[in-house]
Amino acid sequence: MTISLIPVQGLPEIHPGDDLAQIISAHAELAAGDVVVVTQKVVSKAEGRLVAVDPDDPLSHKVHVEAEAVRVLRRRGDLVMTETRHGFVCANSGVDLSNVAEGWAALLPLDPDRSARWIRDGLHARTGLRLGVVVSDTFGRTWRRGVTDVAIGTAGVAGVVDLRGTTDALGRELAVTEVCVADELAAAAELVMGKAAGVPVAIIRGVEPTWLRESSVRAEIVRPYHEDLFR
Amino acid sequence: MTISLIPVQGLPEIHPGDDLAQIISAHAELAAGDVVVVTQKVVSKAEGRLVAVDPDDPLSHKVHVEAEAVRVLRRRGDLVMTETRHGFVCANSGVDLSNVAEGWAALLPLDPDRSARWIRDGLHARTGLRLGVVVSDTFGRTWRRGVTDVAIGTAGVAGVVDLRGTTDALGRELAVTEVCVADELAAAAELVMGKAAGVPVAIIRGVEPTWLRESSVRAEIVRPYHEDLFR
Repeated sequence: MTISLIPVQGLPEIHPGDDLAQIISAHAELAAGDVVVVTQKVVSKAEGRLVAVDPDDPLSHKVHVEAEAVRVLRRRGDLVMTETRHGFVCANSGVDLSNVAEGWAALLPLDPDRSARWIRDGLHARTGLRLGVVVSDTFGRTWRRGVTDVAIGTAGVAGVVDLRGTTDALGRELAVTEVCVADELAAAAELVMGKAAGVPVAIIRGVEPTWLRESSVRAEIVRPYHEDLFR
Repeated sequence: MTISLIPVQGLPEIHPGDDLAQIISAHAELAAGDVVVVTQKVVSKAEGRLVAVDPDDPLSHKVHVEAEAVRVLRRRGDLVMTETRHGFVCANSGVDLSNVAEGWAALLPLDPDRSARWIRDGLHARTGLRLGVVVSDTFGRTWRRGVTDVAIGTAGVAGVVDLRGTTDALGRELAVTEVCVADELAAAAELVMGKAAGVPVAIIRGVEPTWLRESSVRAEIVRPYHEDLFR
């Protein structure tokens, strides 16, 4: 019943066109049922989602922040909280300068669920193993300080697990029933990655086997506009 | 560098006045540097934070929801999003009927940081080990479906880790620098607890040693009203 969080060490710097599945499988001993968590930054690099910015102008990436947004929710100083085309609400539309070469910024993948599927399918082709993949990114939250990692794309592992109809330890039907397992997997993986450590991939071993199923962050986790009380 | 998430099995039903540190240490093999994550429900039970409700009236706990709140942020049908006296923004002020005997509801601990300290000090007295403790609860989020576990109290393990001044893998100073490690620990622990499994305590083994320090959710994680863009 124990779960292990295993950082994948020694990955090279990722460039546009790189085959992440090939690189990950060459650096990790994978086992059936593993969930592979890959940070957005290396996915964006491999997919060439990079734009040139002026290294002498700390705000020159802001034009891309606006271009990636469908809606601006809040502004305060340089901070812009936007809703992206994917439906994510995050700072600066996810446009980010850290861990990217000077003069460049990384945009979010066009379709992170598809990115996760590509990696999952590539790992399956190389290993024959049934695996889950989570593409993670670092988001702030309302009402709570500090950032945590969340899932922006999934393949082969649940987004939200519905416990409706199951009972609690005392035999009563559960009221709070939908657990966002994918976000908990992303947060757990971050514990062995660390922003500063430069470990962009981690393996989660020992997850509940029923969580390994087809899934989509877009369909399961992104809360539609009309459901939301805080937009 | 691997982190292990270990569920603590076989705990008895918890009653008011029970000594959680004694019960946990009798059921778990602890090691120096472990973080012990304890769900709010058993902490509230041990501290007697239970109120009688009418089992035939599904809304009879709502009077307690109002009493625990300092501010109501949103209402939709039976759902009330409140700010509690602790500064948490959550559904129903954290008042909860699941995993509590029929006819009773559990309130949040009066001071979850203090609850965490009591458990940490009790475990230290019994084992002599330096440990961290996180008291966790299950909260919903804006913009994303499904609930995840977060920290409502900490002792001996960091709330938010400030990476300011450290550099990324390419040697540039990090822009996003404050990681809410305590919430990531709570989310990770939930992966081996499960709402339905009735495992209210988990051990996280192998965390970064520098995270083991004095801390407080109230001081580090609760975002003050005037800082918040979404209240």
